Formats: sequence, structure tokens, C-alpha cells
Amino acid sequence: MEQTHINFFKKLLGEDNAYFDEAHKLAYSYDATRKVFKPDAVLFPKDENEVSKILAYCNDNLLPVIPRGAGSGFTGGALAVSGGVIISFEKHMNKILEIDLENMVAVVQPGVINMDLQKKVEKLGLFYPPDPASQTYSTIGGNVAENAGGMRASKYGITKDYVMALRAVLPNGEIIRAGKKTIKDVAGYNLVGILTASEGSLAVITEITLKLIAKPKLKKTAFGVFKSVNEAMNAVYKTLSSGVKPVAMEFLDNLSIKAVEENFHKGLPKDAGAILITDVDGDLEISLDKDLEIIEKVFKENGCFNFIVAKDEKESNDLWFSRRNCSQAITCYGSLKINEDITVPRSKLPALLEKINEVSKKYDVLIPCFGHTGDGNVHTNVMVDKDNEDEVKKGYAAIEEIFKITIDLGGTLSGEHGIGISKAPYMKLAFSDAEMELFRAIKKAFDPNNILNPNKMGL
Amino acid sequence: MEQTHINFFKKLLGEDNAYFDEAHKLAYSYDATRKVFKPDAVLFPKDENEVSKILAYCNDNLLPVIPRGAGSGFTGGALAVSGGVIISFEKHMNKILEIDLENMVAVVQPGVINMDLQKKVEKLGLFYPPDPASQTYSTIGGNVAENAGGMRASKYGITKDYVMALRAVLPNGEIIRAGKKTIKDVAGYNLVGILTASEGSLAVITEITLKLIAKPKLKKTAFGVFKSVNEAMNAVYKTLSSGVKPVAMEFLDNLSIKAVEENFHKGLPKDAGAILITDVDGDLEISLDKDLEIIEKVFKENGCFNFIVAKDEKESNDLWFSRRNCSQAITCYGSLKINEDITVPRSKLPALLEKINEVSKKYDVLIPCFGHTGDGNVHTNVMVDKDNEDEVKKGYAAIEEIFKITIDLGGTLSGEHGIGISKAPYMKLAFSDAEMELFRAIKKAFDPNNILNPNKMGL
Repeated sequence: MEQTHINFFKKLLGEDNAYFDEAHKLAYSYDATRKVFKPDAVLFPKDENEVSKILAYCNDNLLPVIPRGAGSGFTGGALAVSGGVIISFEKHMNKILEIDLENMVAVVQPGVINMDLQKKVEKLGLFYPPDPASQTYSTIGGNVAENAGGMRASKYGITKDYVMALRAVLPNGEIIRAGKKTIKDVAGYNLVGILTASEGSLAVITEITLKLIAKPKLKKTAFGVFKSVNEAMNAVYKTLSSGVKPVAMEFLDNLSIKAVEENFHKGLPKDAGAILITDVDGDLEISLDKDLEIIEKVFKENGCFNFIVAKDEKESNDLWFSRRNCSQAITCYGSLKINEDITVPRSKLPALLEKINEVSKKYDVLIPCFGHTGDGNVHTNVMVDKDNEDEVKKGYAAIEEIFKITIDLGGTLSGEHGIGISKAPYMKLAFSDAEMELFRAIKKAFDPNNILNPNKMGL
Repeated sequence: MEQTHINFFKKLLGEDNAYFDEAHKLAYSYDATRKVFKPDAVLFPKDENEVSKILAYCNDNLLPVIPRGAGSGFTGGALAVSGGVIISFEKHMNKILEIDLENMVAVVQPGVINMDLQKKVEKLGLFYPPDPASQTYSTIGGNVAENAGGMRASKYGITKDYVMALRAVLPNGEIIRAGKKTIKDVAGYNLVGILTASEGSLAVITEITLKLIAKPKLKKTAFGVFKSVNEAMNAVYKTLSSGVKPVAMEFLDNLSIKAVEENFHKGLPKDAGAILITDVDGDLEISLDKDLEIIEKVFKENGCFNFIVAKDEKESNDLWFSRRNCSQAITCYGSLKINEDITVPRSKLPALLEKINEVSKKYDVLIPCFGHTGDGNVHTNVMVDKDNEDEVKKGYAAIEEIFKITIDLGGTLSGEHGIGISKAPYMKLAFSDAEMELFRAIKKAFDPNNILNPNKMGL
């Protein structure tokens, strides 16, 4: 980076909030994709005004700017693929500014860790439902930028359903507000809507106002073992369309079950086609029991031969063990896991899993699947040997075919990970030229010089 | 309109779907604002392809295009303020295309009337919650364009919370899709988010996919009479922050109560400060009763001296009578009702009502208030004599002051009516120059020639 730039940032932020050394560049060069792109600078602004000054300067000097939460994303959203300046919120802009009990709203800075917010509001009898698997380290800013999902999406929705208002800085340094602490607000275009899930490419979010709900008093866990994955997938959408609203409805297929059992010896039935694990919640015991009654009935009508309801929290944790550990367990199938979060309408889950099985046979690769079936979101893992070039090639061919199948079934490339760089090559499968042109026009409206997180999302 | 344009539209749509006569121009010149702007043409396309061809032609010839639902909007969104072409969906594009029971989703054309959809899905045990007061005649297309609210917003949210996917035509005639029949979809920018509430100014929506939920089996109504409006407003936000989720939480102030009583003689207490009417719903009687217990307790702790729970549907309808008829009843206070749907964070309701009272005294105008307090949305009605120029002037000065108060309290110009032309002059109170510039840039990204619903929203 040019010395004039370095001098500017050091003067603006102070020596200990602006870094240009190799160690910092390396530390901020990666994310969960394991790809490495070194930035030219790593900056820790103290407040919105400093963010504004950084952006105005970068806009004038055409320096790429990459806002970064915890770097836990799966698609490269926080990677400095074209070099430039990382803006990190982890050092200063990481505070819960307000928990407004009267309006049931939290106001936070982007660097707040999801679980820290959850814990704080739960102590006050409130609840922030979005719970991405990364919840113990990912930040609310990153969650909003990627519109993070999680296990509780089936009942409670995803990040976008909780963002009421934002403060953000445009690439030209202008500070904007969007939305209010109100359920209804229809004045002006829905900037909250377009900024959520924009992967840090339209504006830098500096403050987030989140809707909270009352914490449900009770939760119960049920666990069903199915003969076939097809029957389990039928059970999922039939349960949901019965009107029961499980908090989560998670599944493991046979390969995932086997992997967990071989790694952890929990007594899982290695020949089962699938396991479904579900939580129900609410304030009244009788209401939870009624839900579980319906779930048991639907499960058993659809090939469930073993149905267990946890008696207490310990048993619930035991039942959840397999789901929580399967992502790690399946690494036994290959040194490279090509992991995609495809999502289809729930009724298409049986067809999706059947077709993934055909792809697995066609390309002779193992594809363990698990995930959030309650909202049609399947984590599909093509497992290959990373040192076997031919197998890696087959793996990516299999994934491309799975994306096509997903789109054909009315589904989407990504339920919660975003596009970033990992899925950018597949955007053309999902979007027409007119739609891609519109995305580019929107990007240009916010960021005419293309400085904000450039070269992402296939734009 | 030039004869070449007339010939083009007649040839494209047929003689009986393209009108240029005075009678049609007049019939499509008004909306609920009672302002009149005659268009140059009224077109009834049969499908998306015809909409596409109309738009491409208008874009080439710089003709304004105004998409129109039922013309029931309160802010002029459907008015042809610059002349041009009305696209109406009421004749052909008015069909419920699909009720997908397995995924609990409805797919409709923009001209479907809200209540027709509600009735159809309720017969199937499903529920479409958004219920604007215009529900018996307003269309889903208009509801999406304005992001319509309604009484049930307090528990169930507003239109945007139910829009999963859209098909739309851009001003250049290109057809785009946005969103999927999936709860999660984070591929590409959130076009569903930005198109909802865009007041027909970005694209013409031609198909809407809506989330449905299971219909709650039971509903109960409660009615509380309060000494003062201030205490009633306290009761509202304290009930909500107790964790109870009433479907609706509606209020009438003293002037509204008096007007209903003088018009309909229902035995309402004319000296009461306020009435709150609330519904709770769910599947279990015990759960509704628990909710009502908490509501009664909070109400009585906050100055409620008469609390009634309806025994059956007839009694429930009786309790709702005053709320349903107060908008009409208050016209006794003046021949011109300047009606605004301001919205504040719920905890600010007491302060808002107090300040409106001060404004009423300052300008010597009556301002009856009622509305959806469960979500902080107050219908504020400045009543004046339309033939008294001085009073009308005072009325608008009072409204401007009320908007300023609302913004100062963290509220918004509009909870559900939109901006259109009526509120356009007040946009500068709520948005900075940078925000207005951004709105204009977004508009330009979608509609570079500014043909779609031009000169609305203060843009």
C-alpha cells in the first residue's frame, strides 16, 4: 500500500488501530472457505464517523473496502479478493448499545457476537431466535450481511425477520438510517430489506436494531428413526403442513448417521435411512404435548420405527448430540468437503434427496446430507480426496448437477451461506441476464466506484 | 394521446382491453385521496407478456405507466399525476393461481382481492393474516406495492412478512423473478424486499407468492374502558412487553367514543378517556384464557375500570362495533378529515397522544385518534371545515407539527398508507439529503427513464 494511504489511516485511527504488517494481513486473509487473500490494510475504527472517513477516502482513492465480522463465512464474503482495506468491528464496534424492554428491541454494533446477544436478552426473559451454527463466534453484523439462518428458522424465521432498523455508511462516506423501532414503516424504499443479505457490497452497516420476542418458557425434544430417507422427508413436510410449528426439524441421512456412530459410538442404528430430531416450544406443557402427539403420529405413518421424547435437558442434549457433531464426523469420508446449503420448497425434499442419491452413483462420490429440513434447507456434502485431482473434478461436477436439480425443483443456490466467491460461478444457473443486470444496476446505485466488497456475488 | 400510441395499444390488447374515452379516463382518475388526475389510457393486459410489451413501448416513448389495483389507496399511489397509461389488473390478472397445501403457500395474480384470498385459504384450514381496513376491495398487488398493514399486524406482522416471491416486469419490458417458495433464500440481492412497499415505482408486479400459516382454531375478544388515554397507552405497551401476543390491540380516544355514541347509541361511556379492544387467538382454550388473565391484570393496573370478555361471536362483534364504525362516525366533527397513519415505538404512545392533545389546543382543531396501538400505529384525524380556508390551513399546520413530533419520538411518517403524493412534502422531515439521493439512485437503477409511477414519494 502506498505510504500516503498508510499515513492517512494511521493519522485518522491512531497507530494501534491501523495495521499494514504481514502478520495482520495474514490473520485477516482467510475465512471458513480456507481460501487466502491478503488485504493491504487492517483497520479497527472506533465509531461510525471513522467508518465514514475511511470510506470517503477509499472512494476517492479507489481502494477496495471489505467489512469483516468474525470471518466465519462459508462463501468468502469477508475475503479481500482484490486486496484493499479490511474494516474490522471486533476491537471497538462490538457493543450491545441498548436492550429496550418496553419495545422489545435490541440495538447493537456490528461486532457483537450472536451468542452474547442471545445470552444477554434471555436473562431478561426475551429471545433472539436466529441461531446460525456459528453462533458462538459469528457477529450480528456478519449475520445481517449474509442474512444468516439457523436451526430455529423453521418456526422463527431468519435474520431478516428480526432486523427493524439499520445505520450504515455509503461508499461516499454518507451516513444513512433505514427503518425504525416500529413494526410498521412504509416511508421510502425498504433499505433494511435490500441491505440485509447484501454481503457487505452496498454499504457498511454500523448499527443494527433487532426485534426481540418473549422467551418461550418450555422446550421438548423428540427423535425419530426412519427406514428410508424418502419417508423421513415426507414426514418433514407433512408435519409442517399439519399446522404444528416445530422450532427445529433437523435430519441426518444414513451416511451421516454411520459417520457419527463410527466416531462417537452412541448406539445409533447404522442401517437406518434417516433420523429426524425436532424441538417444540411454548409456554404451556399441554400445548407442547399436543404438538408431540401430532408429530409422533405423522412420523409413525411415514416409516418411523423408533420415536423417543427426551425426559429432561440431559436426554435432550443426548438426542441432539448426533446432529451437532455430524458435520465434523463426516470428514471421515474424504479430506475435502464440498459443502453447499441448497434449499427447496419442503414438499420437494423427497425428490431432492432421491436425485442427490442418483448424482452420488453417477459420479461415484459419497454425498452425506444433513440439515435444516424444517425449512427445506439441506447441507449437501460432496466428500472427495483433496489430493486426487480426478475425484475433486468429479466432486465439483456433482455439485454443479445438484445446483441444477435444486433450481429445477424451485429451490435456491443458498439458504443461508450467501454467494460470495464460492457460488458466484453458479449464479447464471439461477438468474437470467436481466436479473444479473438489475443486480449490477443496484450495486452501482449504492457504490458507483465499485469499492465495496468488489468481485463478489458474480457481479 | 397520440393516435400512433392508441393504435399500438388497441392492436396489442384488442379493442375491448384498451380504452381512451373520457368515461374510462374519469373512472380511473381517482383514489381514496379524492384527488382527480385523468390518465391518457386505461389498459387491461391479459398476462405478463402483454404487461412486458406495454412497458417496453412506454419506455421507448417515454409514456408514464401507473399500475393500479382497486384504487383504494390513501396517498395517491394509483393516481396518474403526470397523465400516461393506467395498467389495471382487475379485469384479467385477478386469479388465485395456486394454493399449495404441502408448502403452505399461495400464488396469486396482482388483481386478486385480499378478502377473496383470505376466504379461500381459510376454507382449507390456512390463514393469510394481513387485513388492511380495505380488505374487502383492495387487491394483493396494491397491498404488496404499499406494504399494507392491518389490525392483525401486532401479532402477525404486515404484508412484507408474507411475500416469499414475486414475478415482475421492469420498465424496459424485461421479466424478472425474485425469491422462491422457500423460507430461506439468500442468493442475489433481496429484490422481494425492495419491491415490497415500492409503490409501483420500480417494477410492475405480475405474480405474488405468499406464505400462509395454519388457521388458529379459537379467538376471544376483550374490551377495556379507561379513565384516561394516557393510561390506556401505558396499558398497550405493558401488555405487549408482558409477552402476551394479542392478534389486535385497537383503541378509540374520547372524541372517537363520543362520535360513535352520538351516531349509533350503543351505550358507550361518553366520558371515558379511551377504549381498548383486543383479540387473542390460538388452538387451546386454556392458552387464550391465560392471555386474557394477563391482559385484564395489566389493564386494571393502568386505569381500566370496566373489562369485558365476549362470551360468543355475537358479543365479540358488538364489542368491535365501535372500532369498525369510528372512522365514519368522526366525520361529524368536520367536512374535511386530514387522516394520517403515523407510527411510533409502542412505549412512546403515551407521549405521542399527549403531544397531539397539545397540538389540538394550539391550533384550535379537533383531532380524534384511533387505530392499531398494538403496533404503535395511530390514525390521527385532523377535522376541519373544508369551506373554511383558515381552518384548513390550521389543519395542515397541525398535521405538519404532528409529523415532526412523530419523527422526534423515533416514529415514521407512515405505518401502512405509503407516501404517494399526500405525504411527499413531508419526506424532508424524515430523510436526509443523502437518503433521498439514495432513493433516487435506486429508482434510476430500476427505471432509468422515470416512466413508472413518476413524481411520487417525493423523488
